[in-house]
Order: sequence, then structure tokens, then C-alpha cells
Amino acid sequence: MEKYIENLNWRYATKRYEETKKVSEKDLATIKKALQLSASSYGLQPYEIFVVEDSEIRKKLRKESWDQPQITESSQLFVIASYTEVTQQHLDNYIENISVTRNIPEENLEQLKSMIQNTTLQLPPDQQKIWAAKQAYIALGNLLSAAADLKIDATPMEGFSPQAYDEILNLNEKGLTTAVIAAIGYRSEEDQTQHLKKVRKSNEELFTTI
Amino acid sequence: MEKYIENLNWRYATKRYEETKKVSEKDLATIKKALQLSASSYGLQPYEIFVVEDSEIRKKLRKESWDQPQITESSQLFVIASYTEVTQQHLDNYIENISVTRNIPEENLEQLKSMIQNTTLQLPPDQQKIWAAKQAYIALGNLLSAAADLKIDATPMEGFSPQAYDEILNLNEKGLTTAVIAAIGYRSEEDQTQHLKKVRKSNEELFTTI
Repeated sequence: MEKYIENLNWRYATKRYEETKKVSEKDLATIKKALQLSASSYGLQPYEIFVVEDSEIRKKLRKESWDQPQITESSQLFVIASYTEVTQQHLDNYIENISVTRNIPEENLEQLKSMIQNTTLQLPPDQQKIWAAKQAYIALGNLLSAAADLKIDATPMEGFSPQAYDEILNLNEKGLTTAVIAAIGYRSEEDQTQHLKKVRKSNEELFTTI
Repeated sequence: MEKYIENLNWRYATKRYEETKKVSEKDLATIKKALQLSASSYGLQPYEIFVVEDSEIRKKLRKESWDQPQITESSQLFVIASYTEVTQQHLDNYIENISVTRNIPEENLEQLKSMIQNTTLQLPPDQQKIWAAKQAYIALGNLLSAAADLKIDATPMEGFSPQAYDEILNLNEKGLTTAVIAAIGYRSEEDQTQHLKKVRKSNEELFTTI
């Protein structure tokens, strides 16, 4: 466990990547596995994840991201795209997945299905979108600690135009919208921010025990 | 790293806890450290975290959480409470923290300060609240993987009344609102859900490489 904390101390929001150093297939598969295992409300995983490697697309995305170099210099860019709304089809697919995975007849899952229907699917569309985006942030948290565990650098980013991303990646037609993005790769020696001391709230400011 | 994935496979949203088994002070400190080190947009950490141990308060909270037993049976209940809005005072405190931690004069941080002022503080209040809540979900993701790394069980929960929580914990007067909660502790042998197979989207459903 000391190592877990050590890795979190090691990580930082990388500003410049060593463009020639690529994440191995094996490590990439592990990060994807961590994302796949991320918790989400009801287990619905209301998002899809795009692993962008294509340099032409990344050039376009960089223009829509305040020209941040991580977008094109990193090994991979993860775009976590959440549902614009949760549809009956999403729910039906999920119930089918539970039924097949756990070998339970779908009729025995009616109670769960009703519960999700009566909560999530009844939310106003804009609330559904926010709810789905929050689940994407749990996955982001997991991506960051999984990458740190592999001593792979990562940059979580909100500084981009979601509308432009949605257009470039054709997300809206899939019922998706860009929630958050993260670059992964290896820090450049030139990135001076790696030497900065981590700034955090003190225990006293952050925690209250009741 | 195999262990990281193994731990994520081991974890599940625990439904029943062994009430007599408490998380040790050492492990609790490690989970808090992981939360403290969580990434957030600009590093602002727009939340405070309440570690609820008091049984009377937990009884009240359970009534506002669909009577879910985890609220009272777990070792600790974490309430991640995010800013209702990001104030000038929050920003000033943050800039001061950077200045002290990194030994940089505050006047050299004007550019960063303006950037945060012109983005986050300019958002409409409801957007600020959503933005802050999303950062809390990154911390939640980190809490879940840190707990799993310690083989401590955890339950992320959204099924509660944020308004009632805010009232019971006097959060609004502190400019806070409950974003999300998580119980930690040790699973009860009686919790049958621990034996269920994990349900997840397949690689093909979840990921697209471009």
C-alpha cells in the first residue's frame, strides 16, 4: 500500500510528453481493463471510451483544446464520452447482459429494471446527461491511479470544446457527448512542472471526522 | 500491476458489512491520503470530506438513504461534499497555498489566478455546482481503488437525499452540498451479492480505437 500512495505522489498533470515513447500494448490493455472494471451507478457504465491514436484527428482535436501539446504529443488520448440520455435500449441491453453473465432469467430482474426505470430514466434529459458524465469521472479517477501504478504519466483535461469534440468524433449520432479526456504516455524531461511540489489542502482543511 | 486488476475484480458494491470489524487507524489514514492526493481540475479540490463514525448521526442518515444497511453497518461513511459555488475566497486560499507550498510570490501566480477567474468563477452558479461535484467523483474513483488495494470493502452510493444530508450535516452554511457518499469496512459473510459474477460491457462495446 505504501506503493499506492508513492505512485499517487509520483503522478502529476503532465504538460509535455516524450513523443517517441509509446505505451506498450500490454500496459494499454491493463489501463483499459481498469477502465472496464470501474464502478458506476447501478453498474450501467453510461459511457463509451475512445482511444485516439490517429495523428490527423489529434491535430484537429488539439485546435479545439487551447492548443495544449499533450493532445498530440502523448502516446494515446482517451476520450470518455457519456450518454446524452439513458434510453430504454440502454437499460434493456444492460438487463440482458446481467441475465447472460449471471445466468438469471430476465423476468427475475424486473425489480431492478423498474428501479432504474423509475429513477434514472425518469430524470429530466439534462439531469440524465449530468448523471452519466459523473460516472465518467469515476472512470477517470480509476484511469489516473491505474496509470500511476504502471508508472505511466497521464493528464486529465477539461480544457477543450465538448461540442467540437463531439463533431470531430461523430459522437452525437451515437447518443454520446464528450465528458472528459485524458492523455497518457511518458513525461518529457523538458517538462519543468514535474519538479513542482504538489499543492493540496491540509488534512485539517479537507477532512472532518464526526 | 496484475494485483491492481485482481483487486478491482475482487471489489464489489458491498451490501452488508460485518458491523464489528473496524478499519484500522493506519488503513483509514492511507485511504484519506489517497483522497487528499486525488486529481482535480486546476488542483482546486472543490470539496470537503466528512468521515462519519457517530452512530446516532448515521441512523438519521440511513433514514434518508432508502434505509440501506451499509450506512450504519459499515466501519466509516465518507460523505464527499462539494462546493455549491466557487468563491473568490476559495480561489484566494488556493493561490496562497500554491505560493506557500512552492515558495513563489503571489504576484507570479496572477496568470493562473486570472485563468481560473475567467473560466470557473464565471460559470453560472448551477454549472459551478456541477463542475465541483464532478471533481468529487474523481476522488470517489480513487477511494474505491485505494480501498480495494487494502482489501477493504467499499460501497459507492447515490441513493440518498442530498437535501436531507446537507441539513443533518449542516453543509449549506459551509457552502457545501453532498455530492456522493461511500461506505467502507469489511463484507459480511451473509452478503450473497459477493458471489455474483461482475457484469461489464465487453471490450468491443466499451472501447473504440481511432
